[in-house]
Amino acid sequence: MEEDKGYEIAPWHLRWRGLDLQALHATESTFALSNGHIGIRGTFEEGEPRGLPGTYLNGFYEQRPLPYAEAGYGYPEDGQTVVNVTDGSIIRLLVQDEPLDMRYGRATHHERVLDFRTGTLRRTTDWMSPTGRQVRIHSERLVSFTSRAVAAIHYEVEPLDGDIELVMQSDLLANEPIPARTDDPRVAAALDNPLISDFAAAHDFRAVLAHHTRTSGLRMAAGMDHEIDLPAGARCGIETEKDLARLTVAADVPSGQRLRMTKYLAYGWSARRSTPALRGQVEGALAGALETGWDELLRRQREYLDDFWETADVEIDGDAELQQAVRFALFHVLQAGARGESRAIPAKGLTGPGYDGHAFWDTETFVLPLLTYTVPDSARDALRWRHSTLDKAKNRALQLGQGGAVFPWRSIDGDECSGYWPAGTAAFHVGADVAVATSRYLAATHDAEFEAECGLELLVETARLWATLGHHNSRGEFRIDGVTGPDEYTAVADNNVFTNLMAQKNLRDAAIACERRPGRARELGVDDEEAARWRDAAEHMRIPYDAALGVHQQSEGFTHHDEWDFEGTPPEHYPLLLHYPYFDLYRKQVVKQADLVLAMYLRGDAFTPEQKVANFAYYEALTVRDSSLSACVQAVMAAEVGHLQLAYDYLAEAALTDLHDLHANVENGLHIASLAGTWTACVAGFGGMRDHDGDVTFAPRIPQQLTRLSFRMTVRGSKIHVDVRPRVATYRLISGEPLELAHHGSTFTLDGSPVTKPIPAAPDSPAVRQPYGRAPVHRG
Amino acid sequence: MEEDKGYEIAPWHLRWRGLDLQALHATESTFALSNGHIGIRGTFEEGEPRGLPGTYLNGFYEQRPLPYAEAGYGYPEDGQTVVNVTDGSIIRLLVQDEPLDMRYGRATHHERVLDFRTGTLRRTTDWMSPTGRQVRIHSERLVSFTSRAVAAIHYEVEPLDGDIELVMQSDLLANEPIPARTDDPRVAAALDNPLISDFAAAHDFRAVLAHHTRTSGLRMAAGMDHEIDLPAGARCGIETEKDLARLTVAADVPSGQRLRMTKYLAYGWSARRSTPALRGQVEGALAGALETGWDELLRRQREYLDDFWETADVEIDGDAELQQAVRFALFHVLQAGARGESRAIPAKGLTGPGYDGHAFWDTETFVLPLLTYTVPDSARDALRWRHSTLDKAKNRALQLGQGGAVFPWRSIDGDECSGYWPAGTAAFHVGADVAVATSRYLAATHDAEFEAECGLELLVETARLWATLGHHNSRGEFRIDGVTGPDEYTAVADNNVFTNLMAQKNLRDAAIACERRPGRARELGVDDEEAARWRDAAEHMRIPYDAALGVHQQSEGFTHHDEWDFEGTPPEHYPLLLHYPYFDLYRKQVVKQADLVLAMYLRGDAFTPEQKVANFAYYEALTVRDSSLSACVQAVMAAEVGHLQLAYDYLAEAALTDLHDLHANVENGLHIASLAGTWTACVAGFGGMRDHDGDVTFAPRIPQQLTRLSFRMTVRGSKIHVDVRPRVATYRLISGEPLELAHHGSTFTLDGSPVTKPIPAAPDSPAVRQPYGRAPVHRG
Repeated sequence: MEEDKGYEIAPWHLRWRGLDLQALHATESTFALSNGHIGIRGTFEEGEPRGLPGTYLNGFYEQRPLPYAEAGYGYPEDGQTVVNVTDGSIIRLLVQDEPLDMRYGRATHHERVLDFRTGTLRRTTDWMSPTGRQVRIHSERLVSFTSRAVAAIHYEVEPLDGDIELVMQSDLLANEPIPARTDDPRVAAALDNPLISDFAAAHDFRAVLAHHTRTSGLRMAAGMDHEIDLPAGARCGIETEKDLARLTVAADVPSGQRLRMTKYLAYGWSARRSTPALRGQVEGALAGALETGWDELLRRQREYLDDFWETADVEIDGDAELQQAVRFALFHVLQAGARGESRAIPAKGLTGPGYDGHAFWDTETFVLPLLTYTVPDSARDALRWRHSTLDKAKNRALQLGQGGAVFPWRSIDGDECSGYWPAGTAAFHVGADVAVATSRYLAATHDAEFEAECGLELLVETARLWATLGHHNSRGEFRIDGVTGPDEYTAVADNNVFTNLMAQKNLRDAAIACERRPGRARELGVDDEEAARWRDAAEHMRIPYDAALGVHQQSEGFTHHDEWDFEGTPPEHYPLLLHYPYFDLYRKQVVKQADLVLAMYLRGDAFTPEQKVANFAYYEALTVRDSSLSACVQAVMAAEVGHLQLAYDYLAEAALTDLHDLHANVENGLHIASLAGTWTACVAGFGGMRDHDGDVTFAPRIPQQLTRLSFRMTVRGSKIHVDVRPRVATYRLISGEPLELAHHGSTFTLDGSPVTKPIPAAPDSPAVRQPYGRAPVHRG
Repeated sequence: MEEDKGYEIAPWHLRWRGLDLQALHATESTFALSNGHIGIRGTFEEGEPRGLPGTYLNGFYEQRPLPYAEAGYGYPEDGQTVVNVTDGSIIRLLVQDEPLDMRYGRATHHERVLDFRTGTLRRTTDWMSPTGRQVRIHSERLVSFTSRAVAAIHYEVEPLDGDIELVMQSDLLANEPIPARTDDPRVAAALDNPLISDFAAAHDFRAVLAHHTRTSGLRMAAGMDHEIDLPAGARCGIETEKDLARLTVAADVPSGQRLRMTKYLAYGWSARRSTPALRGQVEGALAGALETGWDELLRRQREYLDDFWETADVEIDGDAELQQAVRFALFHVLQAGARGESRAIPAKGLTGPGYDGHAFWDTETFVLPLLTYTVPDSARDALRWRHSTLDKAKNRALQLGQGGAVFPWRSIDGDECSGYWPAGTAAFHVGADVAVATSRYLAATHDAEFEAECGLELLVETARLWATLGHHNSRGEFRIDGVTGPDEYTAVADNNVFTNLMAQKNLRDAAIACERRPGRARELGVDDEEAARWRDAAEHMRIPYDAALGVHQQSEGFTHHDEWDFEGTPPEHYPLLLHYPYFDLYRKQVVKQADLVLAMYLRGDAFTPEQKVANFAYYEALTVRDSSLSACVQAVMAAEVGHLQLAYDYLAEAALTDLHDLHANVENGLHIASLAGTWTACVAGFGGMRDHDGDVTFAPRIPQQLTRLSFRMTVRGSKIHVDVRPRVATYRLISGEPLELAHHGSTFTLDGSPVTKPIPAAPDSPAVRQPYGRAPVHRG
């Protein structure tokens, strides 16, 4: 290789130069394209070398039994695993009989560029075959934001050393063999040959393969069609087998000319529709895509993204790498959520098979805030997915002896798939996370239609869970015992503050929403007595506090537990859960991820400033960040209590989680929640944005390394721009109605005129420390 | 059937009359014979009908992978399951070409008798074949207490209606097909064809089959030899296959004569010895048994049992069923523990495959008290087994990041086999249970040799665990957080009182024993600092107490939890763990089995009489007895606090657990701990016997239904007899040195003269209640 390998820093794209076989897994994730419905990892068109190829359809999974050494009542019997569906990205090339494979011959130049504005992945490779023949390949691919079922690849080959004989094979390949995976419990189990052929047909340049899964019985179809500039004398043929469709083009390409092909892909799946219907669906999508054409697909993609950046862009002056990382993050969160449309947004989006393709509470708590204020329709669709699973959640509650709805800890279709209940079913906070996300969306949009159709019911059924899950003690306090909060290093504890405060808001918001819509509330069976019980439980919610230490207890008794021996824990023993038994983690003061600190952000209204300072310092010293859901939250609260450098370090950690592969598992897909948390660290951290019950407030303050931070938001249809400099912040209304906002505690009305406010000096908080060896990288 | 079916009440045997196919599973367990090394379920000689045939060798198991839906650090990878080994009990009979099978034709008379004094199972069956031919079968079998490797069956057939043609087939059958089992998680997984043939040979009347297990690689051999009174003209042959050896005898038996056979069986197994060595071992044992002969085997069996009853018998006047049940219990506990010899005593003994054949804390806590005071050598051998697994337990502690030794929750060979850590590994009290059993044995025997070889090391390594598992809080209290006590309906809790009090004694006793044997202590690496830390931890052990309620908390915060909805729990929803999720059981006040109440028995020295009264009442109202380890303990404490009728009810429940099949699972084997608890309920309950640190005291008091309760005990080699009447108790020294004892708080010396003492009236304790529907059966 002639070139340095690695990512290049640039504001609007991510470029990788050079070929690094070791990095293929990782770059397939970072270069994945998705529209929330279809996801295609950034594997080379020629198929090999490869890391872990993957094409995913949101919601399309195979079922597998969950085994238990000792079974228990209510354990889910079946798990769900996202399936690598028919791969349409493959375009194999033979150069004068030599298959293009960069492991052989020489790639004299090789680069890939993920462009955040065009929404495409471009690739240029100059390759010399083992026998010395040279070609240049250009490809550009997209998964369309505007045509949900469509992806496309534009592919060109150019001879570099005279006339050349080329054979191109454009494939649809089902049941692609996948390399074996590690036995890390967090890595999804690989599935062998999950697809059973139902149908295969081809004519001209078009082919369709239809399959179904063995156990879950979901049906899918994948189709491809092509536009090719066929050179004179070229030969062309198409053929199908049950798991393969292949268009073959053989051509002699004269020096100075190029062999060009556009490959259009269409995907469809359904649990209900028949194979012929799905075939019709993908052939229709292909016809539409051909009619639209490559250039127009590109134009629409660009237009869609221009709109997105107009409402969502975050600008950072003074740290070019962070600027790139923040846009990378925004782009991938958009890809994960844009066109999910009543499907879940998985923890990895559609960028890899990690976590089996499951969605968690991450979506509501980390991803939806970003979408709510930038692409609110996508936030609404994600909540519609939760609503569509309410029947399953109510059945699960019944099975567990509870009222209302129990949403799954992890799932693809809404059924609980967690095989370890202390860190699964017991994490009941997921219900409140859904409710709080619903409240947030409603407050930020005033979407009355959604409230009537879905929102109120989500609030009511989640509130009903807390009413049965908790109880009053003899002092009249409302306790929620035996649950697991966000920190998975403490499980099955009493009165987790995060859970109790989120449940409190859930109960209150349900009661308020029922007052707002009494008719719909009655339809849902809510009477005044029930709403009164919710208000009472909320009012008397127990929040454990250690008066001796002057800090809240993450959960009852937490501060009495032994401290983890951080000094005796070598760096290679992180993440701790892979090196220490749960029992020892659970009974000691060690925090996997922000828990009380997350409560102080999301329920900041429940803490005094002094409590925030003391709690932040206490839990900062215990938090090891073995989860990617922590740094962004710590950034937010570090900024609030005045530790701007620390907040900056955490923002960088969140933003670079995948680009620097900080958790050594980006190969399984991106950490969508951490990427979304990057936005949160900017907007809620340095922007100090809070939205308690619809009161949008700001308390901006940027670290000394930055000269400017600006961001855009949509609130109740009004688009605003917030520009933060070291000493002043300027608020602008881009469009829409005036808004009541606040800046560092003083309210103002933002209308047509920009408002500039001075930024007070940061409060002087006492220094904090992290567990031994776990301080974030200092960003100079 | 002409007869009533069922057990008959008699003081010295258990007789079952009639054939009841539905009861076969159960009676195979109650009629199982064992010497602690070999166990043979009470299956008919003819093989069918049958419930669940089983022949077990203590310690002989197959290994199987333990699957996890989500694996975790330190989870055991392999489980162990007791294997149904080569069945030597089969003697098939053809009566004039019709196979004897009681499901066909008619069994005009059928009975079986388990004789507690002869130690044999006798059977008499009169059978009329479908074609009307009649025979009488007598069989008697034993598993020898005196020849550990030997079992024998004496078998006779008598024609009842004239000359008859008989064919007898005496089998050794390996890999016997076993009926499928339920999917109750507590029922052991069945293993298909676990044995691989190594060797099969036969000559004359003798055959040997040798096998090994596929995965655990254990080797075994089974042999049979026969004595037969061959009638004139009889034909005889023996043959072998890899899984079958068969001696066939065909004879015409004239009316008035009998066909008689004695079948001698020998078993051996080893993880180390070769197949030829094992073959030699069983052939040697067979030769010895033939030399001894059936009559002498019978005589020695009787003699062994005469000795046992001489030191262990419990007499009850006024309740014949209870008298039988208590002797049944003593007999089976003896069978489980007599000749284990450095193997574990499994929870089911060798009477069935339940719990996979694993040993639990039951052994030390429930079984060893009985053996310690009646057959102390067996108690010693069981503790030697624990000692022999110390290396495994120390490795497990290392793996878990702890000092000392962590004994397994369940195991056959000493490796942890629990697949659910909150009710397995987290139940660290097993270490203290071993230590306290060691202390008890040492105090009751002054066995210096055992203390030096094993006892001190057991005390030291278990104490070392507590020193690392616990920590001091800021008030100087020593806490043990995140563990599971005996009550499996609360798990992973802080400061479980039972655990902390048992650990306290463990720490103290280890320090005292090190003082007693400073040389050996130094060899074990104990210095004065370490012993001082143990004493300090013991002294400051935290014991949570709810001052408002005036009761101890089973564990930290327990009394603040919600109460279980007992009124809303239908009877068919017990045991609760099969009908409710763990999370809900764990976070509510519902107790599976005596936990704090067990602490009040074993560590009665740590509670005031008033606390015992209050605690007993509080926990009585919460305890559902979903475990067979509860009633006997509740009997003991009910008696102590003055509820004699309730104690009597609980004694009966413990005693009749298996005979009345109260847990509906006796088919998987007997509840050895509950059987042993029957003795405890008599001796510690109505006898009020306590042994705190070697001070043996009594506080006898019997319920009004009984006119007399007497029991025998061995203390430091002295045999005593305690005879309790309604108003007086008489103590007698049968043999040995005088003893210092106490009667209701006043000490006395027991020497050659009987001592008679008056019994004070029972204290007047306030009434107690059980959870709705869970009161024990009132015994009138």
